[in-house]
Amino acid sequence: MQNIIQNYLSNINWSIEPKQLYEPIGYTLEAGGKRIRPQLVLMGFALFDTDIEKAVSAAAAIEIFHNFTLLHDDVMDNAEMRRNRPTVHKKWNENTAILSGDAMLIKAYQFLEKIEPDKLLKILPLFSETALQVCEGQQYDMNFEQCEKLSEEEYFKMIRLKTAVLLAASLKIGAIIGNASDEAAHWLYEFGIAIGIAFQLRDDYLDVYGDPKVFGKKIGGDILCKKKTFLLVNALKTDNLWLKAELKEILNSTALEDSEKIKRVTEIYNALEIPKLCEAAINDSMETALNCLQKVNSPYSKQPLTDLAEMLTGRKE
Amino acid sequence: MQNIIQNYLSNINWSIEPKQLYEPIGYTLEAGGKRIRPQLVLMGFALFDTDIEKAVSAAAAIEIFHNFTLLHDDVMDNAEMRRNRPTVHKKWNENTAILSGDAMLIKAYQFLEKIEPDKLLKILPLFSETALQVCEGQQYDMNFEQCEKLSEEEYFKMIRLKTAVLLAASLKIGAIIGNASDEAAHWLYEFGIAIGIAFQLRDDYLDVYGDPKVFGKKIGGDILCKKKTFLLVNALKTDNLWLKAELKEILNSTALEDSEKIKRVTEIYNALEIPKLCEAAINDSMETALNCLQKVNSPYSKQPLTDLAEMLTGRKE
Repeated sequence: MQNIIQNYLSNINWSIEPKQLYEPIGYTLEAGGKRIRPQLVLMGFALFDTDIEKAVSAAAAIEIFHNFTLLHDDVMDNAEMRRNRPTVHKKWNENTAILSGDAMLIKAYQFLEKIEPDKLLKILPLFSETALQVCEGQQYDMNFEQCEKLSEEEYFKMIRLKTAVLLAASLKIGAIIGNASDEAAHWLYEFGIAIGIAFQLRDDYLDVYGDPKVFGKKIGGDILCKKKTFLLVNALKTDNLWLKAELKEILNSTALEDSEKIKRVTEIYNALEIPKLCEAAINDSMETALNCLQKVNSPYSKQPLTDLAEMLTGRKE
Repeated sequence: MQNIIQNYLSNINWSIEPKQLYEPIGYTLEAGGKRIRPQLVLMGFALFDTDIEKAVSAAAAIEIFHNFTLLHDDVMDNAEMRRNRPTVHKKWNENTAILSGDAMLIKAYQFLEKIEPDKLLKILPLFSETALQVCEGQQYDMNFEQCEKLSEEEYFKMIRLKTAVLLAASLKIGAIIGNASDEAAHWLYEFGIAIGIAFQLRDDYLDVYGDPKVFGKKIGGDILCKKKTFLLVNALKTDNLWLKAELKEILNSTALEDSEKIKRVTEIYNALEIPKLCEAAINDSMETALNCLQKVNSPYSKQPLTDLAEMLTGRKE
């Protein structure tokens, strides 16, 4: 399925005028990534139909939308690198990143418009609502950076919006194109929410405990920018006031070196048994996911979806 | 018709969470402006149908889209003020302006989705194509700022994309909702292109020759930022090499005071009879517009459209 998506995406011609607008879009999309969301569109579809070509423009729409969010997020976070290459606002400039991003969002809608009319009318409101939720998630993420403390509830609300709803909508869009019943599409969506949450929890975990060679990012990045991950949110909930004070002091320290900061925060996480807590939360979410998937009544095998879910959440390589 | 739009827009509730995302949208939309584009939607509709409620969500979609472009343009131009109030990126910050703008673009699609299905399927591709063209126009506008010289053809291409297509699409969207024939919708679109061009020419003209009290902006702004207006593009075409060199020298001067710069550039425009040329171009475009409007076969009066066109292009107050 990755090949189908890759072929479709690489056949889109971005060498059109004005090149200052379209070149950065091609650059962003050619960088690759795991193409998880378009795969979910195709997998959602493949539970109900075999003619995969019907779903591929919707898969592209979702991937273009996702890359639009990365492009604008990188401007907002002032990120220098993305997938080992300079971000668009670094390679070109900020205005280019803003305007090319806007054009990408519109292009995402244009690829959606290729869906046959009766399906499009169902998918369009779902897509727009999801897109708006992703913006809300990004806003909460930025708000929470300023917060001293965050409840677990707020954390889950944020990752649901920022990460899970797009995975869920991808699956549901595929299912709708495949003529799934409303009920099947509903449970597939709920499955997507649960794996999305597990996926984000896993990402939080790997930022601290991952193998940098496999993870593809520098370890401890979230610690250095005091990101409100599942790990930090839970560590800050400890009754051990001494450890809590120490954790805050390390995070806010300007004297400590980065590697020392990461090492000492990790030690606190270990002392509080946060990794166990995180693994348990991932398992909980995966269990919810598999329960939802079981309720999806579909003519074709669910195995590829189970495999992808286990891969995303680190149970399987 | 302005009242209908105003009521509809002011009944949208933007006091929702996360407020950092939605408050700037409410702020942008409450600032007002002339609401020309949503008026065009309603006027396009009113040529073919009387139940104006059917078109009002599309009118709102267009106005929200237009205000999204202003919001992001202001970031790109680093503009401080818009409609006598601080721009969003000045009142809040740049990240807010980027993300709230993104959300506005999606909201524009959501208001479009309220159109009845058979009409929506026709309107959606037109809206997306137009939105993309507006981005292209903004890109050309930024590109041309760096150019020494611009052909009249390039100038017209740019203003067509940046200004005219949205006016034209507004009319056509209204017409489609009103069940106009394809031919009528086509000629109404062409009418919109022509008045859009005349409107932009008039705007270029007023930047130099307007009454600041009526115009609402400072006179000479385009001169100070060396914007490639119809006036400048044509002045730079002169055979009088001495005058051309002088014009360039004044524009690039860092020693001259703003008011002196504006005065001397205006004198050169006058010497080259550029105002006459501009008036002639406006009249040409208006003639084209009225010819197109004549070809629109509609049951209801075209007078409101003729009046609006004449108002926009300065023939009538």
